[in-house]
Amino acid sequence: MINQVLELLEEKKYAQARNVIEEMNAVDVAAIFAQLEERETIVKLFRILPKELAAEAFAYMEPDIQQNVIEAISDKELSYILDEMYMDDYMDLLGEMPANVVKRLIKNASEETRGLINQFLNYPEDSAGSIMTIEYVDLKRHLTVQQAFDHIRKTGVDKETIYTCYVTDENRVLEGVVTAKELLLADPNEIVGNIMSTNVIYVQTLDDKEQIAKLFSKYDMLSLPVVDKETRLVGIITIDDAVDVMQEENTEDFEIMAAISPTDESYLKTPVFTHVRKRILWLLILMLSAMITGQLITHYEDAFAAIPLLVSFIPMLMDTGGNCGSQSSTMVIRGMALDEIQMKDFFRVWFKEIRIALVCGIILSVVNTLRIWIQYGDFFMAITVGITLLITVIIAKSLGCILPMLAKALHLDPAVMASPLITTIVDVCSVFVFFNMAIWILHV
Amino acid sequence: MINQVLELLEEKKYAQARNVIEEMNAVDVAAIFAQLEERETIVKLFRILPKELAAEAFAYMEPDIQQNVIEAISDKELSYILDEMYMDDYMDLLGEMPANVVKRLIKNASEETRGLINQFLNYPEDSAGSIMTIEYVDLKRHLTVQQAFDHIRKTGVDKETIYTCYVTDENRVLEGVVTAKELLLADPNEIVGNIMSTNVIYVQTLDDKEQIAKLFSKYDMLSLPVVDKETRLVGIITIDDAVDVMQEENTEDFEIMAAISPTDESYLKTPVFTHVRKRILWLLILMLSAMITGQLITHYEDAFAAIPLLVSFIPMLMDTGGNCGSQSSTMVIRGMALDEIQMKDFFRVWFKEIRIALVCGIILSVVNTLRIWIQYGDFFMAITVGITLLITVIIAKSLGCILPMLAKALHLDPAVMASPLITTIVDVCSVFVFFNMAIWILHV
Repeated sequence: MINQVLELLEEKKYAQARNVIEEMNAVDVAAIFAQLEERETIVKLFRILPKELAAEAFAYMEPDIQQNVIEAISDKELSYILDEMYMDDYMDLLGEMPANVVKRLIKNASEETRGLINQFLNYPEDSAGSIMTIEYVDLKRHLTVQQAFDHIRKTGVDKETIYTCYVTDENRVLEGVVTAKELLLADPNEIVGNIMSTNVIYVQTLDDKEQIAKLFSKYDMLSLPVVDKETRLVGIITIDDAVDVMQEENTEDFEIMAAISPTDESYLKTPVFTHVRKRILWLLILMLSAMITGQLITHYEDAFAAIPLLVSFIPMLMDTGGNCGSQSSTMVIRGMALDEIQMKDFFRVWFKEIRIALVCGIILSVVNTLRIWIQYGDFFMAITVGITLLITVIIAKSLGCILPMLAKALHLDPAVMASPLITTIVDVCSVFVFFNMAIWILHV
Repeated sequence: MINQVLELLEEKKYAQARNVIEEMNAVDVAAIFAQLEERETIVKLFRILPKELAAEAFAYMEPDIQQNVIEAISDKELSYILDEMYMDDYMDLLGEMPANVVKRLIKNASEETRGLINQFLNYPEDSAGSIMTIEYVDLKRHLTVQQAFDHIRKTGVDKETIYTCYVTDENRVLEGVVTAKELLLADPNEIVGNIMSTNVIYVQTLDDKEQIAKLFSKYDMLSLPVVDKETRLVGIITIDDAVDVMQEENTEDFEIMAAISPTDESYLKTPVFTHVRKRILWLLILMLSAMITGQLITHYEDAFAAIPLLVSFIPMLMDTGGNCGSQSSTMVIRGMALDEIQMKDFFRVWFKEIRIALVCGIILSVVNTLRIWIQYGDFFMAITVGITLLITVIIAKSLGCILPMLAKALHLDPAVMASPLITTIVDVCSVFVFFNMAIWILHV
């Protein structure tokens, strides 16, 4: 359907394009804008859209497309869009645009919105305040269900959700919550105060958004109220934003675990030098750390000068140690991210990893010892590598669970203690154990 | 609050416990059950709960707790719970319980449910059918809004969501969708057919659940209709289940990228031998592959017999290559998982990675060359390592983007081509380049 519209636009058949587009979802309309390059066509398309659809589609566009549109349309059209936008989308927009566009956005916003901007700018980046919106339905406890519906009918069209309604007192203090389902199934003359639930799960404006996303997934909620220090209702967070936070946090963990500084830009749109900046620091740190292993090896020159074959086992020991460590750290980091593993489980986790390491280590060790014994016919050489491997696996899996939990205890991000860093640390250990075993068993 | 209830239960103050618990959320009630060990207390707690809350809490329990409860309660209580359960939760339960419990579950289900079980058992594990539920609101197009509300009031209490209603014809073919918000804001005498949206986003029973979760996040939906081959509506998927799928898929990617076979068990509840089974295969494969690097090194015995110092650079080269490769593969795998990178972007991505590799490689290489030159005063040695490092970084970052995209093209999971496998492949390359450079530049 998107291609059909694009073709019609190219052939300048605007009336037909409008007919097709009117039936479309705002997300798909936004996708059409992303395909257009000429400013002229963008304005044209924007102007044939029904106004509401245009405004809704605008909220779904990528920032660079939004900027294109803003720069192409008139002030009047712009202020229409801004009026239709929810506060959370509006704040996102302000955050993404360059200074001159921001100026125009603020100039064309309603007076009420301008008043709110300052308040919202005070919420820290990762806080509940930064992702909440103010378009919620608020009810009073003394209303009847019928009156509540009248209120929803009157004000609901501009609300981001009407399915969870919040009951507040005269000072805007949150008193309870009632769902549209409960209202619908209740008697029209029932009092809201009687059917609302008073055991409300809420968050405060400064709460961390990652924790909030977890609340959504724990309690299967569609929206969550945000209150200030006096438990006055100031906004709500909706499930779609919570899902975005969840995915962002996952992406961040993937990046940190691969020794990349996280950003929220998409891969293709990020310039090469930004990518380099996100990656080079950790690469340098890890490269310089890996030199420690190198320095250590030079201490054992005599050993591998006597038996050069020893050197050939280093890659296998290093890689296997790294892999074992990254398996454990991944399980622990992910377990902590999902709250399946708590700090109090420390010894349980460690004991489990030690047992896993023993079993894995013995299997790997036996396979390796036999392989070397058969290939080189040197039993003592084989047993040297075998024992080293077993010890390496145990060290790797121990560090793999200890370091992320230690990081958490120190209020660092556990994801930092992932494969790259653990591999580097385990390398030193395995080389040290290996050559000492060789000196001890093979008397080199 | 959970601790308070636990204390009251311990002191056998059941009436007081009931008062506290009645105000609680079903998720928290489920958490109390998870803390109890004695079957006697479990039954006791279960029996003091209001019936509906008991049934709702049951759906939120972990499988082992559910089994405890099932084995503790009477057949009559069990069939009450099963009646209250949504079909998707019921199917999950059947999938988790041992054979004897399953037998009892089927015996105590309603006749209607028993008829549906066979149908649901036919849906493959990762399909839309396996996560959908059948408790949706269906309307007819000729109804007025008022009649629609009457229908919702009559049937809504048992529906998993009433906020999106599905309009079907007499053959159950899906015709349109109308939200509770649209109904509420419409005139009571308006005809449903006039306000419903006919451009419905739907999925088929066999569609992959990962793709479905992506639809939710793309279109910000609360529920999604599932149709059969004749576009007859057979069920719906709700956002809470889509969020679970999203998190499962993320966990799966984390595990596969750390060379662990994925499962959906939680870390602490998985026995040691299951953990070993999930990890050992990849460890063995990667260990045996790492031996190739070892074998390769033995070919260059003469080189490092002449200059033993060469050996000390191997860990740094291997680690840096591995880190560079895993950075690139992580970015590409995650980008593909989020649909930010498509197959058609292959050359764009590769070109980008080559440029990133060049810049990163030159920086790392210069730092390294200077370090070695200063430390050992041997310029040619330094330049040998430096050039090798640059080439290694370029190879690593190229493989890091090529292999995951190749995997996708071959319909394999791109996440397999992550750090562990790429590290092993890059190892061979870096050792090969290194010794050939040494032979060429240092004439060893």
